[in-house]
Amino acid sequence: VLGALGRMTAARQTAMAPTLASRPFSSSSDAARDRRYHWVEPEAERLIARAYARHRQLAQRDAVSPNGWKSFPPSISIADLESPAIEQEYHYPPKTRGDRIAKKLVDYGEKLMHLFFREKYDHHAVTLETVAAVPGVVGAAHRHLRSLRCMKRDHGWINPLQEEAENERMHLLIWMQHTKPTGIERAFVIMAQGIYVAAYSVLMYLSPRTAHRTVGYLEEAAHRAYTDYLRAVDSGAIPNVPAGEIAKKYYSLPDDAKLRDVILHVRADECMHRDFNHHLSDLYDAKEEDEFPTKMGEEVEGKPSEAKEGASSGVGRASVVMAASGKKTGPDGAQ
Amino acid sequence: VLGALGRMTAARQTAMAPTLASRPFSSSSDAARDRRYHWVEPEAERLIARAYARHRQLAQRDAVSPNGWKSFPPSISIADLESPAIEQEYHYPPKTRGDRIAKKLVDYGEKLMHLFFREKYDHHAVTLETVAAVPGVVGAAHRHLRSLRCMKRDHGWINPLQEEAENERMHLLIWMQHTKPTGIERAFVIMAQGIYVAAYSVLMYLSPRTAHRTVGYLEEAAHRAYTDYLRAVDSGAIPNVPAGEIAKKYYSLPDDAKLRDVILHVRADECMHRDFNHHLSDLYDAKEEDEFPTKMGEEVEGKPSEAKEGASSGVGRASVVMAASGKKTGPDGAQ
Ligand SMILES: [Fe+2]
Ligand SMILES: [Fe+2]
Ligand SMILES: [Fe+2]
Ligand SMILES: [Fe+2]
Repeated sequence: VLGALGRMTAARQTAMAPTLASRPFSSSSDAARDRRYHWVEPEAERLIARAYARHRQLAQRDAVSPNGWKSFPPSISIADLESPAIEQEYHYPPKTRGDRIAKKLVDYGEKLMHLFFREKYDHHAVTLETVAAVPGVVGAAHRHLRSLRCMKRDHGWINPLQEEAENERMHLLIWMQHTKPTGIERAFVIMAQGIYVAAYSVLMYLSPRTAHRTVGYLEEAAHRAYTDYLRAVDSGAIPNVPAGEIAKKYYSLPDDAKLRDVILHVRADECMHRDFNHHLSDLYDAKEEDEFPTKMGEEVEGKPSEAKEGASSGVGRASVVMAASGKKTGPDGAQ
Repeated sequence: VLGALGRMTAARQTAMAPTLASRPFSSSSDAARDRRYHWVEPEAERLIARAYARHRQLAQRDAVSPNGWKSFPPSISIADLESPAIEQEYHYPPKTRGDRIAKKLVDYGEKLMHLFFREKYDHHAVTLETVAAVPGVVGAAHRHLRSLRCMKRDHGWINPLQEEAENERMHLLIWMQHTKPTGIERAFVIMAQGIYVAAYSVLMYLSPRTAHRTVGYLEEAAHRAYTDYLRAVDSGAIPNVPAGEIAKKYYSLPDDAKLRDVILHVRADECMHRDFNHHLSDLYDAKEEDEFPTKMGEEVEGKPSEAKEGASSGVGRASVVMAASGKKTGPDGAQ
């Protein structure tokens, strides 16, 4: 069984070797030729960013202005979410020993999950999300505490990490409307959390670079899990029930939306988490951990975002679809 | 010296006994007569909420709508920030033994700070903020992890706690533009963070009620520290220099703003932190930790806010100035 699962996992990984797989990513050289998100196709980067901005925009949508204006989320179609750009299992080839260990650990965890859950992809998803929502909050807290004790600016890492954690938590609450976890699953989640939070916190403290790379690989696995879930629904093995209320509000879905639509949106979010964490790991690699991260879509839309120190998630979130100045600056003009 | 400091501290505490000091706060009874923020005057509650919404609104202000609309922060005058409503040293009388221990510990810490910093209120403020920004992120992470492992909704606690942490971090960055910490201060901050984060995390896990009460008392002390700073600037002991750029952008201050204006705004933020944490402690007391917290100003403006599950800080932040429906509901209509 393990052998079969191993072969299945290997066959699935359609590795898209980045243009510069053998060279460490450097921001100073080749800036004009290389994108930060070099391991995904430009069109994919653009689409992943648009999909993610959809629920972001929703948060600002609730802000009622004095003149009654409400913001609207960017439109993204089912066809977009089914397209190769989102369906593609982009893989970031490991560069260091730490990367390879991380990849092996994630592969091992993935096999265990498949062993336990088998074809119950819905239960697999619920349990996965209780774990997936941890790295974002640990990462955000790490950057926050670092900013405090070093008495220096964070440069826009905290908000997107908190956003990721909140997005994953929403995934959990969305799936809770579709799936009732078993007693064993609930017990496992409670027991595992302490271990998982401690382990990831230690890893983040010792090597933020490897921590984010690990999350990138976890999200690659999550992406595969959602494609499994999608296929199970399409084959009829899992009924394509109406979408829950939380999902419909969170993703601005029409009233007749179905489970399938929700899975598509959630999977697109996982693409963002995958690629953003791989990017953060790259930044640590290039000793650029005090630079503003590059938002997905920024380098391909032609409208660089302006991350601001002190801007809450509300702003960071809007920046993907904002037309702003070309330079990344802090609120006082300095970086 | 300690005796003198003790008397000074005792004299400062103008205790405003809440109307129902001897009765445990109960949400079910007397709902029509009692406000959640019963230990502050209604006018004070209103003003504190408006002052806090000022920097909040600023975050949404950066979101550019398709038609170019920008939101504007509520206006708040210097006179407002100097008024008794904000200047008053509101005190929440301890109700339990845990409260009394918390109060004693905070008093002890306050005395130590005064012993070390004496009249250097600017250095006192910078160091204080490196500690003040911790409870918010620990509290938010606690609620987030609880939501995950119990697989249940959070009901709007996470966002305001993250907001508090970010607000305190901004205080730090603002003061860093005015004050250069000494080597000893920097070393102390780094060493103390590990201890402080661990201690508060354990306290939050064992007794969230006492943790939030402690923060309430810490903020009462922070409020006093800023009044000291203000008086030192007014007496000329500390020069009333022009405000730094971060402060001016964060609080929407005019170009000729001074240090004094910044201190007034920061102190008003501390009022919010003080009262919101006391309120959260009350909720745990009344076994209402799965209810939406009441935002300051909500019960006195007559426009109850609508906190939404899954809404990022951008929404939670706007809710104070939003005119919304009377009922607190989650996004799917349920609480
Ligand atoms: Fe997820
Ligand atoms: Fe994920
Ligand atoms: Fe503060
Ligand atoms: Fe504070």
